[in-house]
Amino acid sequence: MALIVQKFGGTSVGDLERIRSVAGQIARNFDAGNDMVVILSAMSGETDKLLDMAAKITEFPDKRETDVLVSTGEQVSVALMAITLQSMGYKARSMLGHQAEILTDSQFNKARILDIKASRIKQLLAEKHIVIVAGFQGADASGDVTTLGRGGSDTSAVAVAAALKADKCEIFTDVDGIYTADPNICSTARKLDRISYDEMLEMASLGAKVLQIRSVEFAKKYDVPIHVRSSFSEEEGTMVVYEDANMEKVVVSGVTHNKNEARITLSKVPDKPGIAMQILEPIAEAGIGVDMIIQNTRAGNLTDLTFTVPKSDFDAALAIEKKIAEKIGAEDVIGDQKIAKVSVVGVGMRSHSGVASRMFSSLAAENINILMISTSEIRISCVIEEKYTELAVRTLHSAFGLDKPA
Amino acid sequence: MALIVQKFGGTSVGDLERIRSVAGQIARNFDAGNDMVVILSAMSGETDKLLDMAAKITEFPDKRETDVLVSTGEQVSVALMAITLQSMGYKARSMLGHQAEILTDSQFNKARILDIKASRIKQLLAEKHIVIVAGFQGADASGDVTTLGRGGSDTSAVAVAAALKADKCEIFTDVDGIYTADPNICSTARKLDRISYDEMLEMASLGAKVLQIRSVEFAKKYDVPIHVRSSFSEEEGTMVVYEDANMEKVVVSGVTHNKNEARITLSKVPDKPGIAMQILEPIAEAGIGVDMIIQNTRAGNLTDLTFTVPKSDFDAALAIEKKIAEKIGAEDVIGDQKIAKVSVVGVGMRSHSGVASRMFSSLAAENINILMISTSEIRISCVIEEKYTELAVRTLHSAFGLDKPA
Repeated sequence: MALIVQKFGGTSVGDLERIRSVAGQIARNFDAGNDMVVILSAMSGETDKLLDMAAKITEFPDKRETDVLVSTGEQVSVALMAITLQSMGYKARSMLGHQAEILTDSQFNKARILDIKASRIKQLLAEKHIVIVAGFQGADASGDVTTLGRGGSDTSAVAVAAALKADKCEIFTDVDGIYTADPNICSTARKLDRISYDEMLEMASLGAKVLQIRSVEFAKKYDVPIHVRSSFSEEEGTMVVYEDANMEKVVVSGVTHNKNEARITLSKVPDKPGIAMQILEPIAEAGIGVDMIIQNTRAGNLTDLTFTVPKSDFDAALAIEKKIAEKIGAEDVIGDQKIAKVSVVGVGMRSHSGVASRMFSSLAAENINILMISTSEIRISCVIEEKYTELAVRTLHSAFGLDKPA
Repeated sequence: MALIVQKFGGTSVGDLERIRSVAGQIARNFDAGNDMVVILSAMSGETDKLLDMAAKITEFPDKRETDVLVSTGEQVSVALMAITLQSMGYKARSMLGHQAEILTDSQFNKARILDIKASRIKQLLAEKHIVIVAGFQGADASGDVTTLGRGGSDTSAVAVAAALKADKCEIFTDVDGIYTADPNICSTARKLDRISYDEMLEMASLGAKVLQIRSVEFAKKYDVPIHVRSSFSEEEGTMVVYEDANMEKVVVSGVTHNKNEARITLSKVPDKPGIAMQILEPIAEAGIGVDMIIQNTRAGNLTDLTFTVPKSDFDAALAIEKKIAEKIGAEDVIGDQKIAKVSVVGVGMRSHSGVASRMFSSLAAENINILMISTSEIRISCVIEEKYTELAVRTLHSAFGLDKPA
């Protein structure tokens, strides 16, 4: 007998039939003697439908009220699930964010969980209820409804699991685990049995959109092992856990790619102290996130500065830099949207050298030119021309021995 | 400057355009220097849509969870209204039932309000916010979501008005006030300027579906004058207030009718002590409400007992009584669904005699046979054949001088 926290996303509760199917699965786990806490997202499409209504009223709907609005999506899901489980003869209770005492800060639309008391959940579990918690939502100190940002239900699940010291935290998604690369472009990609929190953080932020990043941070902080698995099969998925000595034996755990960035270069910038700040501060002030930044020195006290931004912010960023370039006397501003970032990730890099050189030589062997490079302790990323993305992923997957079973 | 509580029903907030129109009206009241608290129902059709989903899962969805489900309707309304008012440049805040501290008992689906603290509403008003409160919903002592039954937003409005000691409580509906009779069947029906709480209670329970009965009870208890008026015009509606000496001068204030009941007669019942209980207790146990009960004595120690039930419960009640009749040795069970109840209501009856005889003689003059009679201090009701309903209403309306301006 165990205390199991399970999270189901929007497609898993997309209609009454799917809700019934998930209810059956929950019931089987309960019948096997487990205490069950279930976190649900809104029925697929509901959150967007609600946001669309707000967007029709005004371009910038109030954030507090948007949270009041969108949190109804999860509220509907948990009520329907509880009704379904009860109709099957089970004791079930829904819990909204404030009822589950999920205390957050007051950053509406992207609140952070500060604390979970979960005293009512514990009491309901002691009374042998199946507890259905609305994901994505919490309440701040003054009792206002908050939401945790896109994918926030993952974080709800991990936080509830942490508060309850659950034995298992299972995140059911429409993929069956974390892969060594995107199987859509790399046919030899394999599902990983285990991955460390740090690797998952690098991979999630790099475009492997399986778990909300914050849920992984939370899981790492409170040591909650996450089991990422498919809603549509009984097969084991991938465990996201603390790294152990075994993991370090593998140099690279996965290859990721990201086509959602564009780069902007200011060339022949007069190289003076504070010049990078002059170039990048207006970008930050416009609310645009910068990912990679590279500065090269040229001859003659001139420098080139290149950085990447999300493609959706490319036009705005380019317009800003054209003004800046004039002001600071840069020769030219060059934008390029046809780029991609490929990365290799692995905790094994901490103890193995030669990863970078193997990456660069493998790409060179395929005549793929590297435009930018950035690294972290457990990751190396290269920006390349977009057209080489798939080739680069397959090349690196093979070069680091990921094609073969672990 | 006044503190005004306004309630808008589902049709008034049925789509974004109507919400904008209502927002404009609220804003004008605010601009005129008033403190504004607004209670909203769910967008029209939403509550039924949510209930339909629950009904598809099971015939008897859990009541607690049904309240979690349907309360999302009002939550969406208040968020959209707050977003709309803010987009127009006003400070506006939504408040859910538990945030407005609307404390109810734990009778899910038909909870009663026990107390309203409204401390956050008061604070928001002090900060010059327009406060938008979700109608129909509250929270019980353990923080569970409760709803107040159909039309419950009226009660929310009156209760909030009472808690805030509001200067005005305006209920906006799709009718423009309380009429002396249904204008659809009585062309000479007039809108009443004022009506007493007691008269309104008698009329509401008799089928004048303008206000939830409980809201009127609440208003009477806390002395909150209610202004019932149209969402679609600026005209004054009807004030529901404590009766005063002037009101007593009018013998009859209105004529109402109700076609939603059916009657059941057990004939030639052996007349023994406890026989009425034997006949009616199983009806109550089946959750069926009995309105009128009449027992006549026959010769030979036999009696006839007749009672009325809602038409929707007629089949169930008839089946129950057929079994009872056999058990107690009644000769026959006769059902009749083609009946109607017409009533005259007026606080003036307390001080005027001859109302009953005028009612009976007026109906007799039109050859309308009276099947059953019941009375209260300020009401006389007659059950007649359904086909005479319209004729009876017009006849009584005229007989009591309601055709002429007050």
